[in-house]
Amino acid sequence: MKNFISVHDIVTDANSNTGAAIDALVAKALAYKANPFADRKLGADKRIGLLFLNPSLRTRLSTQVAAANLGMEAIVFNVDKEGWAMEFEEGAIMSGNTVEHVKDAAPILGHYFDVLCIRAFPSLKNKADDYSEEVMNAFIKFAGVPIVSLESSTLHPLQSLADIITIKEHCINLPPSGNGNIKIVLTWAPHIKPLPQCVPNSTAQWINAWGKAEFIITHPKHYELDTQFTQNATIMHNQNEALKNANFVYVKNWSTFKDYGKIYTNDPAWMLTEEKLQLTNNAKVMHCLPVRRNVELSDEILDGPNSLVTTQAANRVWAAQVVLSEILKNGAPVPQMGLSPIP
Amino acid sequence: MKNFISVHDIVTDANSNTGAAIDALVAKALAYKANPFADRKLGADKRIGLLFLNPSLRTRLSTQVAAANLGMEAIVFNVDKEGWAMEFEEGAIMSGNTVEHVKDAAPILGHYFDVLCIRAFPSLKNKADDYSEEVMNAFIKFAGVPIVSLESSTLHPLQSLADIITIKEHCINLPPSGNGNIKIVLTWAPHIKPLPQCVPNSTAQWINAWGKAEFIITHPKHYELDTQFTQNATIMHNQNEALKNANFVYVKNWSTFKDYGKIYTNDPAWMLTEEKLQLTNNAKVMHCLPVRRNVELSDEILDGPNSLVTTQAANRVWAAQVVLSEILKNGAPVPQMGLSPIP
Amino acid sequence: MKNFISVHDIVTDANSNTGAAIDALVAKALAYKANPFADRKLGADKRIGLLFLNPSLRTRLSTQVAAANLGMEAIVFNVDKEGWAMEFEEGAIMSGNTVEHVKDAAPILGHYFDVLCIRAFPSLKNKADDYSEEVMNAFIKFAGVPIVSLESSTLHPLQSLADIITIKEHCINLPPSGNGNIKIVLTWAPHIKPLPQCVPNSTAQWINAWGKAEFIITHPKHYELDTQFTQNATIMHNQNEALKNANFVYVKNWSTFKDYGKIYTNDPAWMLTEEKLQLTNNAKVMHCLPVRRNVELSDEILDGPNSLVTTQAANRVWAAQVVLSEILKNGAPVPQMGLSPIP
Repeated sequence: MKNFISVHDIVTDANSNTGAAIDALVAKALAYKANPFADRKLGADKRIGLLFLNPSLRTRLSTQVAAANLGMEAIVFNVDKEGWAMEFEEGAIMSGNTVEHVKDAAPILGHYFDVLCIRAFPSLKNKADDYSEEVMNAFIKFAGVPIVSLESSTLHPLQSLADIITIKEHCINLPPSGNGNIKIVLTWAPHIKPLPQCVPNSTAQWINAWGKAEFIITHPKHYELDTQFTQNATIMHNQNEALKNANFVYVKNWSTFKDYGKIYTNDPAWMLTEEKLQLTNNAKVMHCLPVRRNVELSDEILDGPNSLVTTQAANRVWAAQVVLSEILKNGAPVPQMGLSPIP
Repeated sequence: MKNFISVHDIVTDANSNTGAAIDALVAKALAYKANPFADRKLGADKRIGLLFLNPSLRTRLSTQVAAANLGMEAIVFNVDKEGWAMEFEEGAIMSGNTVEHVKDAAPILGHYFDVLCIRAFPSLKNKADDYSEEVMNAFIKFAGVPIVSLESSTLHPLQSLADIITIKEHCINLPPSGNGNIKIVLTWAPHIKPLPQCVPNSTAQWINAWGKAEFIITHPKHYELDTQFTQNATIMHNQNEALKNANFVYVKNWSTFKDYGKIYTNDPAWMLTEEKLQLTNNAKVMHCLPVRRNVELSDEILDGPNSLVTTQAANRVWAAQVVLSEILKNGAPVPQMGLSPIP
Repeated sequence: MKNFISVHDIVTDANSNTGAAIDALVAKALAYKANPFADRKLGADKRIGLLFLNPSLRTRLSTQVAAANLGMEAIVFNVDKEGWAMEFEEGAIMSGNTVEHVKDAAPILGHYFDVLCIRAFPSLKNKADDYSEEVMNAFIKFAGVPIVSLESSTLHPLQSLADIITIKEHCINLPPSGNGNIKIVLTWAPHIKPLPQCVPNSTAQWINAWGKAEFIITHPKHYELDTQFTQNATIMHNQNEALKNANFVYVKNWSTFKDYGKIYTNDPAWMLTEEKLQLTNNAKVMHCLPVRRNVELSDEILDGPNSLVTTQAANRVWAAQVVLSEILKNGAPVPQMGLSPIP
């Protein structure tokens, strides 16, 4: 693995398919879960930089723990609070608020670190900029070392990998070949603020690529996601209908994609409750957290036996660990440490 | 030791008394002071999370140093700055400013860390909430791993343990059985802002539990502390009278407890000066820091030979180290890392 | 080496001269660059505190990496964000905004850490305060352990050392004795904000002390720097004239020194461009970063083959590593950890 920005990065062998690559990653992640220190020396003398342009709790801590399990030193830098505003526009005349161009910062970070992990949320103002992944791509272009997304403008791959780990852990009888015998429903939920589409995009991208489940997305009208991620998923506007016989219900709010970043409705009827759960096949309930209790999801579900939210968050460690491990095994380039600017 | 929230947590043997338990802890702390790396391997592969809902200098740094002395990896997370506002109310409908409920965050932190240390100041607005220690107790209830207070709404136990270490270091002739032959005076001091009662509460709780000193508290009228902590301490409103023959004077401001969180007076006559020190038995002067110079305590005392404030702060390392060590030796539970939500 | 505040700190042997001492440091730094982990055990059980009163990216990260290369544990503390306002005035009555006096904080940090690194920018309001280096000198006076400047009110020595490392790397034919056969031009550049004089002061101080180059400073009228740093450097107000035949051009903005901290001009004609570079001897272009692109320096230069800015920043690691190493080899005092206040 070279970078880790989307599900496409995990297919390194042209003969392999993405579903099989996901299953292989999950198997390795579960091996780390059984034996966290199995590769204790893999990261010796390697340094990982964790760059946050936006706040983080689970992502930061689970990645730090994963790095430590591999013997790597992790250094956190909160660009938004400890640093200064970065410029991403090519050719910008920097007489405004931005203090440093990514073209200058990224190569240096590439000299200091063997692997660079970056969190950069979307603006939700300019769809073209956000969906071009300009921040993540600029770091890939200029840093010269592997880049791992800690959530980008459009995707959250470490979350999705942890989610599939969690689903597989709870699908003991899932046939290895996959035959669509489990049903996963991604449902929109109300929220008080316009949120990115990263998690639903990423969930759709990974479940589709995995190819081992019947996949339904349910949301109010006009909340369609980008079809590059949803692909052939069944879209339903009737949540109750969609929930029928579900084995897993993934709950998440997102803002509108077409008319970008808006809230069209906040109908509390879309909140997942115990009553709605009765429509499912005793489904396990998932959420990436943080969750607004009694707005997105009811206390009774979160505190009940069907919730997987803590397990998902705990599995973030193994998702991060397997990704870092694959990158290290692929031979992270030795930083040149100033011999010359990285081209 | 399972948690470390108050002096009561150190008595683990029903046959033991708290005074003896304090003496035993102090002895172990002084052994670490003589040999910081004696238990270098005790914390191998253990992780400690330091969660700050409020700012910290000494507490954070001394706990990081203590953890490192034991070979533990410490990860700091400034919830107030790097994270988001947490909700603590059971059943809250989270449509306001709080982003994540402690019921969701705590179990995950319990999965990531072997020991969780938390700083959470009181609001000074709602006495019932503050004195119920809702933050600390929520983490104890939901995290599933040992919790260490880095100062809570009502107490500051690592400070008090460091203070007793410091007192014992300067009482070479203190008889092991304790006979009240040293006199400790806790005196209120002026300050410009309403401060918590944590340090005076905790000082009183620990000195009382230790039981080896004559203990006087002096403060202006209406500054009475909670009697659950002061117990049988002598309360005096005449500071000069109280200081007579003192061996140790502990200086600290606090806001009113009864009419909660107020400033009734700021009489500069209560500032401890060299002149007042003449009333004592050449007393050593203590303060937990940070101190407002020439408001709480005069320069001449802080810069003079009677001040113990640097020693107290330096001893914070050994207090933290012995507490972490006792928790590790008690067998911190191996985090379940996502096998299931912690009940 | 005892402290590292200015070039004067590197001369530890009375028989040595500063130029030779710089060359020796550079040689050791380049040895670390070739073999980063050569002194992996030198810093075992040593702790370095990195205290930031102002933000930092390169300085913080490169110093952390350098410390790790030496096996030291580095702990970062952002005083401005994680802590509180410090008081530096002797005898202050602290009834205002400052919460802790350096006289109380420094000795404690000296107990927690073996080496203390501090960043403290100038106010640009009070020249006398800034140029007295009151913050750095207070820490030297009160901390009791070696102090390393991560940029102070008037100087930035780690930057200057990295710069000379970079210059020497690109001067393969520089005779060891030095004969002025390379020409270095420090040129003022436009900027939108008043910036400190630290980097130009420090550049001048180190190039002068090195004594192996013809050294020209060019700036608009009234931008004269403090002559204690510029000494005998040639000052020119005609930039084009100054650039002629230069081998290295160091680009940097600064605010006025005499009428302290002002912007007198922002003439864009002073921006270094490809056209101006034609006047030089195919000069290498340097800047300490962050740089305002197309304000201080044009894209075409920064993205072209003559730019050394990434190399300079990458060399910050080796500058920091050699300084920490020299301090450790000199025997950093074992912290007294609370045995007594440091006098």
